[in-house]
Amino acid sequence: MRAASLQHLFGLCDALLGVSGEYASLTLAREALDAYRALDEAGRNQFFDVLARDYSPSPQAVMQSANAYQADPSPKNLARLQESVESLRRGLFRRLNMAPGGTATLVEMRKQLLKNLRANPQWQVIDADLLHLLMEWFNRGFLRLERIDWHTPAIVLEKLSEYEAVHAMQGWRDLRRRLEADRRCFGFFHPQLPHEPIIFIEVALTRNMSAHIQPLLDIGAPITPGNCDCAMFYSITNCQEGLRGISFGNLLIKQVAEELRNEFPHLRRFATLSPIPGFRRWLERKRAEHPKELAPLARLDQPDWHAGEVPDSLQRMLLRLCAYYLVNMKQGTEPLDPVARFHLGNGAALERLNWLGDISESGMARSAGLMVNYVYWLNEVERNHERYFREHVIAASPAIEKMARECVLASAAEKGVSA
Amino acid sequence: MRAASLQHLFGLCDALLGVSGEYASLTLAREALDAYRALDEAGRNQFFDVLARDYSPSPQAVMQSANAYQADPSPKNLARLQESVESLRRGLFRRLNMAPGGTATLVEMRKQLLKNLRANPQWQVIDADLLHLLMEWFNRGFLRLERIDWHTPAIVLEKLSEYEAVHAMQGWRDLRRRLEADRRCFGFFHPQLPHEPIIFIEVALTRNMSAHIQPLLDIGAPITPGNCDCAMFYSITNCQEGLRGISFGNLLIKQVAEELRNEFPHLRRFATLSPIPGFRRWLERKRAEHPKELAPLARLDQPDWHAGEVPDSLQRMLLRLCAYYLVNMKQGTEPLDPVARFHLGNGAALERLNWLGDISESGMARSAGLMVNYVYWLNEVERNHERYFREHVIAASPAIEKMARECVLASAAEKGVSA
Amino acid sequence: MRAASLQHLFGLCDALLGVSGEYASLTLAREALDAYRALDEAGRNQFFDVLARDYSPSPQAVMQSANAYQADPSPKNLARLQESVESLRRGLFRRLNMAPGGTATLVEMRKQLLKNLRANPQWQVIDADLLHLLMEWFNRGFLRLERIDWHTPAIVLEKLSEYEAVHAMQGWRDLRRRLEADRRCFGFFHPQLPHEPIIFIEVALTRNMSAHIQPLLDIGAPITPGNCDCAMFYSITNCQEGLRGISFGNLLIKQVAEELRNEFPHLRRFATLSPIPGFRRWLERKRAEHPKELAPLARLDQPDWHAGEVPDSLQRMLLRLCAYYLVNMKQGTEPLDPVARFHLGNGAALERLNWLGDISESGMARSAGLMVNYVYWLNEVERNHERYFREHVIAASPAIEKMARECVLASAAEKGVSA
Amino acid sequence: MRAASLQHLFGLCDALLGVSGEYASLTLAREALDAYRALDEAGRNQFFDVLARDYSPSPQAVMQSANAYQADPSPKNLARLQESVESLRRGLFRRLNMAPGGTATLVEMRKQLLKNLRANPQWQVIDADLLHLLMEWFNRGFLRLERIDWHTPAIVLEKLSEYEAVHAMQGWRDLRRRLEADRRCFGFFHPQLPHEPIIFIEVALTRNMSAHIQPLLDIGAPITPGNCDCAMFYSITNCQEGLRGISFGNLLIKQVAEELRNEFPHLRRFATLSPIPGFRRWLERKRAEHPKELAPLARLDQPDWHAGEVPDSLQRMLLRLCAYYLVNMKQGTEPLDPVARFHLGNGAALERLNWLGDISESGMARSAGLMVNYVYWLNEVERNHERYFREHVIAASPAIEKMARECVLASAAEKGVSA
Repeated sequence: MRAASLQHLFGLCDALLGVSGEYASLTLAREALDAYRALDEAGRNQFFDVLARDYSPSPQAVMQSANAYQADPSPKNLARLQESVESLRRGLFRRLNMAPGGTATLVEMRKQLLKNLRANPQWQVIDADLLHLLMEWFNRGFLRLERIDWHTPAIVLEKLSEYEAVHAMQGWRDLRRRLEADRRCFGFFHPQLPHEPIIFIEVALTRNMSAHIQPLLDIGAPITPGNCDCAMFYSITNCQEGLRGISFGNLLIKQVAEELRNEFPHLRRFATLSPIPGFRRWLERKRAEHPKELAPLARLDQPDWHAGEVPDSLQRMLLRLCAYYLVNMKQGTEPLDPVARFHLGNGAALERLNWLGDISESGMARSAGLMVNYVYWLNEVERNHERYFREHVIAASPAIEKMARECVLASAAEKGVSA
Repeated sequence: MRAASLQHLFGLCDALLGVSGEYASLTLAREALDAYRALDEAGRNQFFDVLARDYSPSPQAVMQSANAYQADPSPKNLARLQESVESLRRGLFRRLNMAPGGTATLVEMRKQLLKNLRANPQWQVIDADLLHLLMEWFNRGFLRLERIDWHTPAIVLEKLSEYEAVHAMQGWRDLRRRLEADRRCFGFFHPQLPHEPIIFIEVALTRNMSAHIQPLLDIGAPITPGNCDCAMFYSITNCQEGLRGISFGNLLIKQVAEELRNEFPHLRRFATLSPIPGFRRWLERKRAEHPKELAPLARLDQPDWHAGEVPDSLQRMLLRLCAYYLVNMKQGTEPLDPVARFHLGNGAALERLNWLGDISESGMARSAGLMVNYVYWLNEVERNHERYFREHVIAASPAIEKMARECVLASAAEKGVSA
Repeated sequence: MRAASLQHLFGLCDALLGVSGEYASLTLAREALDAYRALDEAGRNQFFDVLARDYSPSPQAVMQSANAYQADPSPKNLARLQESVESLRRGLFRRLNMAPGGTATLVEMRKQLLKNLRANPQWQVIDADLLHLLMEWFNRGFLRLERIDWHTPAIVLEKLSEYEAVHAMQGWRDLRRRLEADRRCFGFFHPQLPHEPIIFIEVALTRNMSAHIQPLLDIGAPITPGNCDCAMFYSITNCQEGLRGISFGNLLIKQVAEELRNEFPHLRRFATLSPIPGFRRWLERKRAEHPKELAPLARLDQPDWHAGEVPDSLQRMLLRLCAYYLVNMKQGTEPLDPVARFHLGNGAALERLNWLGDISESGMARSAGLMVNYVYWLNEVERNHERYFREHVIAASPAIEKMARECVLASAAEKGVSA
Repeated sequence: MRAASLQHLFGLCDALLGVSGEYASLTLAREALDAYRALDEAGRNQFFDVLARDYSPSPQAVMQSANAYQADPSPKNLARLQESVESLRRGLFRRLNMAPGGTATLVEMRKQLLKNLRANPQWQVIDADLLHLLMEWFNRGFLRLERIDWHTPAIVLEKLSEYEAVHAMQGWRDLRRRLEADRRCFGFFHPQLPHEPIIFIEVALTRNMSAHIQPLLDIGAPITPGNCDCAMFYSITNCQEGLRGISFGNLLIKQVAEELRNEFPHLRRFATLSPIPGFRRWLERKRAEHPKELAPLARLDQPDWHAGEVPDSLQRMLLRLCAYYLVNMKQGTEPLDPVARFHLGNGAALERLNWLGDISESGMARSAGLMVNYVYWLNEVERNHERYFREHVIAASPAIEKMARECVLASAAEKGVSA
């Protein structure tokens, strides 16, 4: 049964690669996509196995054309060379993309592939081909920035609610609160995925920079009046697992900042209120390594350690450790913390640490309740970005730098050590 | 001055290739496109010269990665190989495509390139790269079929008028007549070229198959009543010279036929009324080769030879020669006549020759006044198409086949000869 | 304070009536609407009192112009007459309607007025003027029929959920189920109330005519496959209390039936599944009047009388009583039951009674659990409608007529008696 | 034949007035409109005769209800009174308006009526009813202001070209020039007349206030650069003769001025460049009355009097006469000149007279080549407007007032005389 389905599918694929007319292609592509979608997971895995094995360029043909190009780097030989390294897979995917819904299915296909890629390293060639093509098709020139609000079709809003990864939505009332007059939400959309956000960002317009996430997520919070001076980016979500590895966030944040500045010329600050997802894990490792210096942290082992009065000294120690973690802990040349990597890589600066910024269960578990504001100073963003990548410099406010220096671990020879 | 402009442009191109952030890319891409557009023609030619010379893959690097792939065709080595044959040019074009208007400028750039390509064969590598990318970006999945009528924005209609290549438009009144209730016009559009048709087709809804083009083009022709049974495709125009080599017509004709069948379920026939642009030139060559057999054609040398009464024998001879030309004259495995190549390759069939079908100056000069109907029998189109490409069979009506057999040249051993 | 607000509002109203330029009108209208909206309920009541007292036509002026018209019914005298009976109120409302949001505010104003109209009969003159104008502005030519589905903006869907009066919605999941592939929803919209449905109807596409409402309202009900042959209208809701008295339902049902027939040519039947809201109340009255004949109904006094096995005889008696109620009980010349009045007046026919069609609390309390199908036979609708209004004939199926005749009360001389 | 058509139409009208259901109304309305449209002009005239004669309110019924209202001005009696003066015609027109295209046909019907109204004064009752209803339906709240440019559908642009009354368009090239980057065009549209402008205005963005119309109308005029500081309203056209008597221009000019100020915050002046259509005719009358004083104007009798050098004295005399004409000549309490009436009534001010502002044939014939700039000072417009209507004050610049005072006729006792 499954074997017959697979054979049918490969029959369609080969016909698709062999046919000459676009219209015939279209018909075959439609059928092939249907046949693929009808496979169960095991069937898809077998499909990937064959795609990986039989649809790569022939080493012999590549060798011949490489030799010819070396002997004579003429246009003709370059064309032959480039053709010889193109896999049949790419041709197949291109033709599948012609059918209605083709792009969406290929994005889904890559999602499926990524799920089991680690266990099937031979599929990397498929992933490489899909990624190559999806980068062409999701070229930023083809994306539209769209405002999302209560006038947006429900089919899109429902997806927002499903995809929201940073601060999960509690139903439609929560969603609605996040789209009120003191909020903004923007997403990138692609013409081939009409009701699917590619990535979206949620923004709160506030008076002064927010230090705590719970008030922003409170469904019953009053709508703030119009005299806001800060745009707080409090959630950014990549929606399409099948587009992993294609970066949209950098561009989205900056285009949204421009939109907001046009709408609210008096905004003084564009900042995030972000988790520090790797802090607590790192901290526990450090406690094991430096039991004496970090002994005062024993209180953290109690379940509700942040309830009641927390000694100033503990608070100070934790903040300094966090500043130290963000400023000095690296993975290669970049920060160890993934959210720091994203925003600092975009050209933002570490601005402020917020005590008990996120007291949700996950906020306590991952970030010891701390949150951080990254600020996007619009006229420094590009310079920060370049210094980050060329000189590995992390932009941070004097206050944060001071805390990092004063950290109990700072004297130890830890700097730059991979954590 | 020009040297400085070019240097500035290449500075931007190299910065664009070197920069890491998407937002910075976007800014640089915008500036680079502006700098390119500011060049005069000579400047652009110099730009192409450098692009062709300095932005191709290095033969050494290609050789290394080809060797590695042959030794071990692993995913990693395949990825390295594919990367090594990608030219810097492609990367550059991809990044230019991110900026607003990028796609349109690259289409324009290729148009410019093609204009002087024959004199500059070294530019073929640029053309290959642009064509490769444009095929990705103009994948048929990204095109929208749109009806064009008197409700269409003037900015689009104006372009129709400019682009129309088969039967030039005589101003807005002519255009309007071609969009009346007994006509249809459809085009393909791409999201990145919002007001630019890629290709469009003009259709007349008629009672019986049209034999003469002049009544269809007559601005004052009465609007035909609703009982039409034929859709006559009387003009199809590719609008974007910069997309030459990417085929859209096959798909357009078939999608339009489907649209029309939905709107008018009683249509019995989808046919063209087409010129035979190579007939007269071929005929003159034949007259030189066969002066005796073709002596009766002497009347054709008179300026107004078709005026007044044309002898039946001459008419019969011309029609047979034309049938013979269409059915038997080849260029390689395909018909010599370019319009025949297009429609027969799409799966249409030669149906009828029309005496004095086009008595315009160019109709007389190129086709000796004849026109031909190609018919798209919707349920035979794919089979015709496949037989055309696999067996080089030309679908023709018995009447046309008979005329071709009875042609005075048919006994001669001309069949299949390249003309 | 309130007195000052009212004085301010009447100052604006009088300025508005006195001003000559449209632009100045627009500005004043905007301010007057703001001033009205800022009033609390007591303020609005006082506003209505003054509007009713001081803005009616002068009896003297009317008398004069009526005399003049009787003496000489010339165009000039007719114009003068018509002007003299136009109240200042109408002029005021017309000018208020010019401002952005004016129409919506006047609809709201009438809603407010109706709420307390019974206690303030002097306001009837205001109501008459508002109704007169709203009938002009909500002329059916200005309404657009729109399909409502999951692609509709959330702001509209939210209102659907709020307004649904027949079968209240249980949140977004319920709403979504009612918009799935086996359902349809349509509403009328007016250009001046962009995101406000005026009236909407919910339709289920089913195999055979539905007899029970609970399965249709079940959020978890499976989506029925495509071979439906019935369109069941199971809910119709007027949304704008301020438009009470302007009838939209008749037109909506028939336009929706046309839309559905276009989309699903194989639909055989357009029917409702409707409550019989006045049945139980009428029945209790009859039980008091005819204690002996209706003694078998004693079981109805038990709380869960329909649970377990209900004797056939009871079931038969109830169904006959209900048929009798629907067919014979009148209010003037029309049926006593309000839903029957609506559908029979539209030209539908009583088709079938459904035992335990609605076992919800309200269904039991109001309709004794029964529901009725009214059928819209498209080619009989207009004839039924005319016979209903001219001859007071109720269209009913033979089965229902038979049950009505067999009712235990039928022998009594009750026919046509006002209930 | 015609009698039968008319009888058929009145049969439909009476059925329409008698029918109770909206849906049946809709069907009958559609048929009645078709029957009306099928009438020739004579048939329509007969239709109007009957409408005027038989569909007016009955004087007896009016008298009764007026008496009742005088005796007791209760809500009920007011309602009865208002109903009794409503003509059957209004009811008929309201129901006709329900059908698709109904509004457009009624606008056309009034156009037809107005054409022959002077010869048929008995039709005034029809005109009054149509005007009353059209004022309700074309309430300014229902109009949308829309920018018209080269992206506008051709069907709308074509109508612009047909309707333009002030400076006729010379085909599509002329139209296109008027929609270039240094021009703006706006119109009011109504939801029931989707592709029909109600009124539109053409604006040129200029550096300094324009004095001459010919450069603005020159198809080949270069597009002016971006540093404009004036918006010149050079043409305003009412498109719908059937809406005569409903004023849209006042509102249009002011809304357009607001739009332009938003788009170009640096605009300093909103002004017209207007003809003085009644000047020459008035002047000729004055020459007859004051042959001696106006003897220097003899040159005006030569055909090309403005060619070559015109003596300063003649120029000065003409300008003063024109200022005098605009400032002092009245029709009742308003200016004699119709364009002056419109702009001054809107609150504009007479700013400047322009010598040889319009040297077209009609410009010379009607305005002796002069044009005038009216300026809309946005913060004085409402005050000017009120003073114009209450105190009959004409706002004029000191320069124009001075010229008017220095006019040779100023000493004569002509002021305020109806001309």
